[in-house]
Amino acid sequence: MDKMVKGIENPSDEEKQRLIQERLDNLTKPKGSLGYLESLVLQYCLCRGDENSCINKKMLYVFSGDHGITEEGVAPYPKDVTIQMVRNMLDGGAAVSVMCQMAGVQYKVVNMGIDGNVESHSHLLSYPVAPCTKNFSKESAMTNDQCLQALETGYSIALSIHSDLYAIGEMGIGNTTSASALAALLLNENPEKTVGMGTGATGSVMRRKKNAVVNSVKFHQSNWDGSAFDALARLGGFEIAGMTGFILGCSKKRIPVIIDGFITSVSALCAVKMNPVVKNYLIFSHVSDEQYHNELLNKMDARPLINLGMRLGEGTGAVLGIQIVEQAMACYHGMATFSGAGVSNRDN
Amino acid sequence: MDKMVKGIENPSDEEKQRLIQERLDNLTKPKGSLGYLESLVLQYCLCRGDENSCINKKMLYVFSGDHGITEEGVAPYPKDVTIQMVRNMLDGGAAVSVMCQMAGVQYKVVNMGIDGNVESHSHLLSYPVAPCTKNFSKESAMTNDQCLQALETGYSIALSIHSDLYAIGEMGIGNTTSASALAALLLNENPEKTVGMGTGATGSVMRRKKNAVVNSVKFHQSNWDGSAFDALARLGGFEIAGMTGFILGCSKKRIPVIIDGFITSVSALCAVKMNPVVKNYLIFSHVSDEQYHNELLNKMDARPLINLGMRLGEGTGAVLGIQIVEQAMACYHGMATFSGAGVSNRDN
Repeated sequence: MDKMVKGIENPSDEEKQRLIQERLDNLTKPKGSLGYLESLVLQYCLCRGDENSCINKKMLYVFSGDHGITEEGVAPYPKDVTIQMVRNMLDGGAAVSVMCQMAGVQYKVVNMGIDGNVESHSHLLSYPVAPCTKNFSKESAMTNDQCLQALETGYSIALSIHSDLYAIGEMGIGNTTSASALAALLLNENPEKTVGMGTGATGSVMRRKKNAVVNSVKFHQSNWDGSAFDALARLGGFEIAGMTGFILGCSKKRIPVIIDGFITSVSALCAVKMNPVVKNYLIFSHVSDEQYHNELLNKMDARPLINLGMRLGEGTGAVLGIQIVEQAMACYHGMATFSGAGVSNRDN
Repeated sequence: MDKMVKGIENPSDEEKQRLIQERLDNLTKPKGSLGYLESLVLQYCLCRGDENSCINKKMLYVFSGDHGITEEGVAPYPKDVTIQMVRNMLDGGAAVSVMCQMAGVQYKVVNMGIDGNVESHSHLLSYPVAPCTKNFSKESAMTNDQCLQALETGYSIALSIHSDLYAIGEMGIGNTTSASALAALLLNENPEKTVGMGTGATGSVMRRKKNAVVNSVKFHQSNWDGSAFDALARLGGFEIAGMTGFILGCSKKRIPVIIDGFITSVSALCAVKMNPVVKNYLIFSHVSDEQYHNELLNKMDARPLINLGMRLGEGTGAVLGIQIVEQAMACYHGMATFSGAGVSNRDN
């Protein structure tokens, strides 16, 4: 764990910040008029440690895994949908595939532990920990070794492939149940509050989902050692742990990573609990319609870029986030300066 | 006026709406999980009157004009900045130029009445009504003929060039003053409330700006005939009237038009006042940091796509809006269906 969690540099740098701000203020626009786009430029360049950094390559990783908790009837879709949707993503038919194509974003699907055989594909990275986590209402979702393996897999992926901007998404039937339980445990929150509709749980499915989360948190709480690692092992999913490791890897490399919806935000929460410096490297793309997402973002002091009532996951919100960050950086590099363009600046 | 204002079709069509919704619901995602992106698909296709319509070409028009009210010292930048920034836009150095380039959006700058000689350029359309409006704190900004000419210019541009999606932006030193006065008059609102910082008015500039708006609204109110046309003639700008005409033209052609910030929203308000059916064709890209923008959008029952604290105008928010609408339509056309991809749908 130590190699992943320690040694993440704090990107704040007063001198570099001054240089970036000065450049922003010389561009042909009233000071600060690009609003939060300017904050994104500051964050991006400080993370990279270079006031001249720019975004060429951007990559989205969709982490996928299956969940034993689906035995409890917590999801309106059968568990098979995980592998079916992964194939759909690889074939280009999922929302995230279409949006990546449109935005010029390369994407990879990471098999972190899917129940079934996912055929090899140029978009697929296959590092399954096991076919499925265990049913965490009865036992830990993973062993400590499995949890470490999932974290290290995500971490290694981040370290192995260069990109100027990373983004994450996920696919796993049952994973809002896992994320809701994790949020409740890690934030000492009423589990009833952290459970939302996910892919569309209503009626009896919703009742079973709430019961599963309430009971599972109660079941694990007394023996939990208080760490994000132990929480992930008890209540997580392979894809959630994989994303946590991935975020740690991006932070180590000093490359910002764009967070998608509720589940990816919970993986970000785990990473931040492991090392609070990680927060500096995160860009939260959107607030979803999943019940607890907005409150989770507030608790993390995170400002999402957009609010379009999306609740699909996959990384769909993250792709829109990439496009906004890219536009911010394009302005920073592409705009003329007042003196260069012969535009009069204001007197004061 | 009649030819511009009358004969705009109401795009609502229950049968087409059912077809579009059915197609959206067959795509491999939980029903409604793309949130507001799905509403955009519905709006777009209904406007076009075709459930198979798609976006290939998208164009942004930046309407520009100069304002006599600048004599009152209402802006922190000198009036020359209008022509300087127009040149900068044409040369590719303005924020909107950079963002259009990044997003693959063609853009044109429309000279509706700029004080000075704007050299011809492939991105420029030149239809100046006059070098500058009159100082509306003392007299009407334009004659009725000038106002009609500005409206017809915008209308004709919309009709003359085909695009699958239009967007508008503006450039004109002094035009938040004009827009604030128009909003106050048209909505019978306290002028003190509708005045914001614009490009950054503070201190004595802000005091003069508020005074100018308060006094101008008082000066014109008693003789105003209650129409948006007369309001535009009294308090408008050539670029604001041009955008109003442009919006009417887009609506007549049944092509949606993306609105940018406060000033473009006021031009939209004028168009909607002329014919309320126009509202169906408008997509509001963002809520800006300009003081009255959020309330104006509320009064128009408009839901902006993003809120990033931008306050630059030019069409910068509209470009981000184009990218979001494009992604929504890409999903609609590019995603696989449950049956096509062999993905199990939920039982209910």
